[in-house]
Amino acid sequence: MVAFPAKHLLAIEGLEPPHIADLLDLAESYALLNRSGKTQRDLLKGRTLINLFFEDSTRTRTSFELAGKRLGADVINMSVSTSSVNKGETLLDTASTLNAMQCDLLVIRHAQSGAPALLSQKVDAAVINAGDGTHEHPTQALLDALTIRRHKGRLEGLTVAICGDITHSRVARSNIHLLTTMGSRVRIVGPPTLIPADAARLGVEVFHDMKAGLKDADVVMMLRLQRERMSGGLVPSAREFFRFYGLDAEKLAVAKPDSIVMHPGPMNRGVEIDSAIADHPTRSVIGEQVEMGVACRMAVLDILARRLPRNR
Amino acid sequence: MVAFPAKHLLAIEGLEPPHIADLLDLAESYALLNRSGKTQRDLLKGRTLINLFFEDSTRTRTSFELAGKRLGADVINMSVSTSSVNKGETLLDTASTLNAMQCDLLVIRHAQSGAPALLSQKVDAAVINAGDGTHEHPTQALLDALTIRRHKGRLEGLTVAICGDITHSRVARSNIHLLTTMGSRVRIVGPPTLIPADAARLGVEVFHDMKAGLKDADVVMMLRLQRERMSGGLVPSAREFFRFYGLDAEKLAVAKPDSIVMHPGPMNRGVEIDSAIADHPTRSVIGEQVEMGVACRMAVLDILARRLPRNR
Amino acid sequence: MVAFPAKHLLAIEGLEPPHIADLLDLAESYALLNRSGKTQRDLLKGRTLINLFFEDSTRTRTSFELAGKRLGADVINMSVSTSSVNKGETLLDTASTLNAMQCDLLVIRHAQSGAPALLSQKVDAAVINAGDGTHEHPTQALLDALTIRRHKGRLEGLTVAICGDITHSRVARSNIHLLTTMGSRVRIVGPPTLIPADAARLGVEVFHDMKAGLKDADVVMMLRLQRERMSGGLVPSAREFFRFYGLDAEKLAVAKPDSIVMHPGPMNRGVEIDSAIADHPTRSVIGEQVEMGVACRMAVLDILARRLPRNR
Repeated sequence: MVAFPAKHLLAIEGLEPPHIADLLDLAESYALLNRSGKTQRDLLKGRTLINLFFEDSTRTRTSFELAGKRLGADVINMSVSTSSVNKGETLLDTASTLNAMQCDLLVIRHAQSGAPALLSQKVDAAVINAGDGTHEHPTQALLDALTIRRHKGRLEGLTVAICGDITHSRVARSNIHLLTTMGSRVRIVGPPTLIPADAARLGVEVFHDMKAGLKDADVVMMLRLQRERMSGGLVPSAREFFRFYGLDAEKLAVAKPDSIVMHPGPMNRGVEIDSAIADHPTRSVIGEQVEMGVACRMAVLDILARRLPRNR
Repeated sequence: MVAFPAKHLLAIEGLEPPHIADLLDLAESYALLNRSGKTQRDLLKGRTLINLFFEDSTRTRTSFELAGKRLGADVINMSVSTSSVNKGETLLDTASTLNAMQCDLLVIRHAQSGAPALLSQKVDAAVINAGDGTHEHPTQALLDALTIRRHKGRLEGLTVAICGDITHSRVARSNIHLLTTMGSRVRIVGPPTLIPADAARLGVEVFHDMKAGLKDADVVMMLRLQRERMSGGLVPSAREFFRFYGLDAEKLAVAKPDSIVMHPGPMNRGVEIDSAIADHPTRSVIGEQVEMGVACRMAVLDILARRLPRNR
Repeated sequence: MVAFPAKHLLAIEGLEPPHIADLLDLAESYALLNRSGKTQRDLLKGRTLINLFFEDSTRTRTSFELAGKRLGADVINMSVSTSSVNKGETLLDTASTLNAMQCDLLVIRHAQSGAPALLSQKVDAAVINAGDGTHEHPTQALLDALTIRRHKGRLEGLTVAICGDITHSRVARSNIHLLTTMGSRVRIVGPPTLIPADAARLGVEVFHDMKAGLKDADVVMMLRLQRERMSGGLVPSAREFFRFYGLDAEKLAVAKPDSIVMHPGPMNRGVEIDSAIADHPTRSVIGEQVEMGVACRMAVLDILARRLPRNR
């Protein structure tokens, strides 16, 4: 195992293949531990983990809460609705408060890209980005990669099609960085309005037609349509979007016969994905993604906690 | 002790007298344990209990949270306001997420009757119905029964008058099933508009006059007036309701001299019940009901956890 | 160590110097323990701490939650938005519920002065006032005093200037009681509209000019401008307030060269305090106040728990 290169996990961009591989190996062992019903309570005993969520997210918050509790940490939830942010406190004052409370591990979700990085410069805690604006969502990419690796045995040389609203998706961005770093061939598939301008720079192939983009793919990764992040005139109708870019049996037929289907959830059934595909017993691995989410977050907490001093 | 007949606790209807008696006996021992300040942390150690509340309820949520923590479980609260239900996720996608998080015990409250039963078909966890629509609220009936048994020494042969808004009350429904199963004589008392059409089928006597219904009763169980569940024209005024169906000293005088008064809380004082009665030092057992609530939920969690596999 | 004189901590008013000194000494030892990353989980093991917040406060709620968890208590958060208060339950019914749940330690914040005292008469738990209306906020005064003592080595004989909106500040009121009891000279500084009518009775000197009030002060304690508690015509504009009563380098220059600057947070930067002062590396002790907050709350929980019976 190589040493993890940073105090924080702010982004996938910048990580090297061995760091990613180590995290996935450790997460795999936590996945097995979770299935066996065993816990490792001493690992984070006496450590304080704070879930600082400026955007609602039951899944991600719960996943980190479970990960922290299974490793024995004291977990505190702070959500924006009950936060003093409403009273006009700056992000940096919040940082100062967290330091004073001797927070060891800080999980942050924020609507603004870069907020976790900003906080990480001011807090003593190890910071984990749980999604910031349209920037990154690194633990989602880790759990996606682990899920793929469990089914395909590797990441190298695979063809992965990421489909839908790429522009507004931090999930897509983190996945592109991780998968290209690990040697997958990544395609992004979506209407021109939902493909970012800098796509070429990301080392991916761009497709505007689903069947062209899905042809012979090993992995079909659907994204949530982020309507709340789109401006008025550009919001596609659900029906129109599904017709051209929603995943159904007909479009999936052009991918490899053993290809797997992924979605970060929560799904808009009938918009990005047909229910029959979402619930497909062998092709859909959507439930497994959530399971690997807890395991990956345990691995990240474990790895980052090793670098923390015991005395503060 | 007989084996509990099901993996879940979705309803009182269908339980046999020995199952109910066993649950009450176990709950009684937890009541004593709680009073002694002792805990049994190893029982649910490593288990994950999720409180999934689609309707607000501080009392019931807190009661389950305490029960779970006192038995050593990792307790996670998910409330509707922070849930991805708002993002359009279906109940079944939520089920899939809960499975993936290896939830062992799922406590659910939902505005729709049958939602817990639906979920129970899709999750690996043992499901406990914490109130669904106008259907059932089984742990409330258990705590009511335990409270009665502690005061009267038995359930068999008692006369129990359940008064007020029967139609909209899952509490009434669960109590009727439990008490008739255990051999109590149950009367329901309320205005015709608040008595369900299928009352006859439930094995109870129906009264529209409080004094007739309360005559010689051993137990007077008041219900909360569920105005939020009533439609416009049928909502009684508080003053009018209290005059005819609110419990005061005069009406209570016709019940047995040692009869006890119950209410599931939160009370509308001056609507269903007069404050002097609610706070009566010997007749009111309303505080004890809450105490028995924690004990009964510990018993239910204990019983259901015994049937869960250790490996997932 | 002298025995603490009461079952509850409802106010600073009424405490004697040895009680305050004992609490601060104990808090100091918890501050060291927290820094060393050690915990004392057995102290409140099996105890139930309920955070009952009728007003939002992330900082204070989190501080008590951390304090309770670090001492091993089961901590339950109840916030007003999810509380049955919305259903019309009275404070006394809430008390009855808390008793029945065998709550050992009750932390309460309420918009009405006296609410914690009222509850304390009805609950079995030890009650800690976490801020009630314009009355008191005793743990804030303790953490302020501990912070001062760490920097000045004593409280006796110091000159402390408390500045800003005194009228609406429970923080000011608790600090005035504590500091005068411990032998500090307290000055209150603010516009006539924000100085309480009974100021003379409090044993403090009143100033309406900041430079006069700050002259040779050892400690400059700024308060949050509580605009939400002021009535229409009396609300000062932020710009005007800052000009006359905001703390900047020029006004601070008249205080002692080694004077420290405090603020209970969250700060309105540019209203009560200039950012350069708030972030000053040697003069500002605002972060340390938060740190001492956790330590003081641990000390209070510890002291009060010693008086609780083990059996309930």
